[in-house]
Amino acid sequence: MATFTVKQIAEIIGAKIIGDENAEIDALAQLTEAKGNELSFLSDKRYAKSLQSSQAAAVILREQFAESCPAISLVVDDPYQAFAKVSRLFATEPAPVAGIHPTAIIAKTAVIGANVSIAPYAVIGENVVIGNSVVIGSGASIGANCTIGDNSKLYANVTLYHQVEVGKRCVIHSGAVIGADGFGFAPVGETWEKIEQIGGVVIEDDVDIGANSTVDRGAIKDTILRQGVKIDNLCQVGHNCDIGENSVMAGCAGVAGSTKVGKHVLIGGASAVSGHIEVADGAQLMGGSMVIGDVKDSGAYSSAVPAMPVKEWRKTMVLLRRLDEMSAKLKALEKKVDSSDSA
Amino acid sequence: MATFTVKQIAEIIGAKIIGDENAEIDALAQLTEAKGNELSFLSDKRYAKSLQSSQAAAVILREQFAESCPAISLVVDDPYQAFAKVSRLFATEPAPVAGIHPTAIIAKTAVIGANVSIAPYAVIGENVVIGNSVVIGSGASIGANCTIGDNSKLYANVTLYHQVEVGKRCVIHSGAVIGADGFGFAPVGETWEKIEQIGGVVIEDDVDIGANSTVDRGAIKDTILRQGVKIDNLCQVGHNCDIGENSVMAGCAGVAGSTKVGKHVLIGGASAVSGHIEVADGAQLMGGSMVIGDVKDSGAYSSAVPAMPVKEWRKTMVLLRRLDEMSAKLKALEKKVDSSDSA
Amino acid sequence: MATFTVKQIAEIIGAKIIGDENAEIDALAQLTEAKGNELSFLSDKRYAKSLQSSQAAAVILREQFAESCPAISLVVDDPYQAFAKVSRLFATEPAPVAGIHPTAIIAKTAVIGANVSIAPYAVIGENVVIGNSVVIGSGASIGANCTIGDNSKLYANVTLYHQVEVGKRCVIHSGAVIGADGFGFAPVGETWEKIEQIGGVVIEDDVDIGANSTVDRGAIKDTILRQGVKIDNLCQVGHNCDIGENSVMAGCAGVAGSTKVGKHVLIGGASAVSGHIEVADGAQLMGGSMVIGDVKDSGAYSSAVPAMPVKEWRKTMVLLRRLDEMSAKLKALEKKVDSSDSA
Repeated sequence: MATFTVKQIAEIIGAKIIGDENAEIDALAQLTEAKGNELSFLSDKRYAKSLQSSQAAAVILREQFAESCPAISLVVDDPYQAFAKVSRLFATEPAPVAGIHPTAIIAKTAVIGANVSIAPYAVIGENVVIGNSVVIGSGASIGANCTIGDNSKLYANVTLYHQVEVGKRCVIHSGAVIGADGFGFAPVGETWEKIEQIGGVVIEDDVDIGANSTVDRGAIKDTILRQGVKIDNLCQVGHNCDIGENSVMAGCAGVAGSTKVGKHVLIGGASAVSGHIEVADGAQLMGGSMVIGDVKDSGAYSSAVPAMPVKEWRKTMVLLRRLDEMSAKLKALEKKVDSSDSA
Repeated sequence: MATFTVKQIAEIIGAKIIGDENAEIDALAQLTEAKGNELSFLSDKRYAKSLQSSQAAAVILREQFAESCPAISLVVDDPYQAFAKVSRLFATEPAPVAGIHPTAIIAKTAVIGANVSIAPYAVIGENVVIGNSVVIGSGASIGANCTIGDNSKLYANVTLYHQVEVGKRCVIHSGAVIGADGFGFAPVGETWEKIEQIGGVVIEDDVDIGANSTVDRGAIKDTILRQGVKIDNLCQVGHNCDIGENSVMAGCAGVAGSTKVGKHVLIGGASAVSGHIEVADGAQLMGGSMVIGDVKDSGAYSSAVPAMPVKEWRKTMVLLRRLDEMSAKLKALEKKVDSSDSA
Repeated sequence: MATFTVKQIAEIIGAKIIGDENAEIDALAQLTEAKGNELSFLSDKRYAKSLQSSQAAAVILREQFAESCPAISLVVDDPYQAFAKVSRLFATEPAPVAGIHPTAIIAKTAVIGANVSIAPYAVIGENVVIGNSVVIGSGASIGANCTIGDNSKLYANVTLYHQVEVGKRCVIHSGAVIGADGFGFAPVGETWEKIEQIGGVVIEDDVDIGANSTVDRGAIKDTILRQGVKIDNLCQVGHNCDIGENSVMAGCAGVAGSTKVGKHVLIGGASAVSGHIEVADGAQLMGGSMVIGDVKDSGAYSSAVPAMPVKEWRKTMVLLRRLDEMSAKLKALEKKVDSSDSA
């Protein structure tokens, strides 16, 4: 178990210490659950009421809360960001095994960087270029002509089709499939004729892609995830999409083909964005949003109908479909009242 | 083809036989499609009308329907449960190949129980503990420090990250990813800093997880699926969630991070439950529900807007966005009528 | 880089050439981005305004647009279909490596056709029958008793459980799981008893299944995807479903168990179709539709509430839940006005 003094941690996060700088921290915990030598943090004001009763040894927090903190205070401007830094000290993930496992199958034309870790049964295709300190999990399949930048990590059973470009410091979680064919079929009578998907996928630096998410290759030009994009699990990005810098997609969200998402757009969980539209920089789509037209301004949007008791829901849905009738009745009534008024 | 007499089946399910106990049953079929020596069941009253014309050799049913049954009746209190038992007699899944395939790669520090079946190209990490009679499919990847309880079954291409605890008699279907990093990033200006996900995943006994579903590891403490939880395909469970005993998630449902779902909650297909909330024991979320706040009582909830013809939908959605205006007009009219009334 | 003359391309798609038939084409591009020797197409009238300024060398288009085309015109009746044909000429996917890789594990009872390509670490079970010119990607797992028809292609890390029948010319993308157990559990008090899923999956000819999609095996009889069905990524098809010929499911759509979808039904992205219902031939479900009852007629349906600014959404959702009250007030007012009218 890793142990750090409060002083060591304060130096890493640039915190002012109020209390014993020599106290030892051996784990992280939530404010309400911390005990012993555990360190916690207070970032969201809503949880401030938990501070006074916290049994944490030390708490990372803003100046304003230090007074009411019963533990050692580590005062910073941005506790959440500081906590992110500290979290690395206590990471539990085992270091990947160095080197290329003898069962990994690597095409002769592939170029492999230094300090890589390639796990058993990974398969790496022709002309692949893998940078330094790249980690590739077991059973991963890397198609021909892919490139993977330095310090990127692909977990077990990731699949990259051919001609996928992955930047530096990217993380692709297990089961993600990058570069499968976009969904393109031309109607021929009642049947469908496949349109070859001849574009690739470009994933810039510092992109994270969650487990079992899918990013399709472009129909003609590339599908692009720009620098710093963060995608959660079970998300879908259609062919030809261009997802702007530092945009985020939470779990189960989907963006249909040829849509351009701006910078720093937040796409909530279970949202769906139609194809062939644009979403403005900085827009926030709350969870469960359906976006079927251009989003022209930043700001928050939603469309989720919050769940209600079934009896109420049944009645509401019937009335929703009678809105037209209600509107007509209201108009008729207004007219009647107006005319009787003027009578 | 397995064959059983009606008597043998009646003994297994504790049924009273009305008809020939020596008749042979060699397959199962739906009421409307059964023929020859096939056994069917009637559980849902809505299908009672199919009973009289059924060509089944025998039918599992409740007392009340025995009179109108043209076939041999197997009378029980709970036909669906009885059918579940009988279904095992006719299971078509081949027995797993006994033993550890020579191509499976098993860390020296792993402890493997008796009677296991480990398929080709499975990879099992350091310090993994695998119980007796566990089955692991081909290409599965089991991270370091995982434990898998007796009689659990992981199908081909399942991925467990490190430090995932799987109970006894669990079933994890192909492509499921358990223990990938939760989606935690702290904002740093426009960019995102990763928060290490240092918790694990605890899956208690008798849990089923469907194909390509994902259960993320906890940020600090563990994500928990409690005893008897049943999860369908393509479902997402976010970090730190606690899913209560015997709760069920149907296909394409998602629960965002840090949400506590009670016991025996039924989450319908394509539902989405927000993060940091609680769902009461026994709540039923109908398919397509969006839950964005605590569900404080058991009972059924829904929010799905049922599909309607597009022309009607267009008009309805326009009117929905004019509800505010309609409400104002209605108020104005009420006022007017009231004042003219009192005039 | 492949190069074709305009004449060669015109012959393949049956086009009339207006301009230099000897011009060379070496790539495809969108109308607004094409340059040099690139070929584009104009199918959707909405993009007609991009034609005049296009720098494409040649454009596939309908007669009516030829006059305003600044490039060589390739005149056809159906430009999109023609483009699909041309796309094959420029396909970038490397040809699969011929033969069976020595690390592929193939049961002795399996029957393998001619000209197959079976990649490293694929595992093929007992009694599997694989047709001619089939391609199987690395790490794919094919369960016992499966059949795969001629010219079908399964990408890396696809999983087929036992007893799955795949027709000819099918494409199954990476991570797809076919034949996992349907979600069937009988309630036993608060717990759940598994119902063995003894049916299989039948996939007819010319079916495409997208990355990480799942098609469950039938409970008793087979789940069926009929000829020409096209399924996008992250879609779910429940047990016992019967998806009719040439029907299409776009990304993240789900069809729950025992539902019968007609022929040439278009299921939009992120749609959800309930179990045990029927959807009529030719129905079109717009993206995000929730279908909870039979769809009896062809025609287009929708239920998506389009996203709106959050402030408006909050107000709208409050009013939606007051529809009942509004309706009652309206009725009362009508009555009042009527009675004062007749007074």
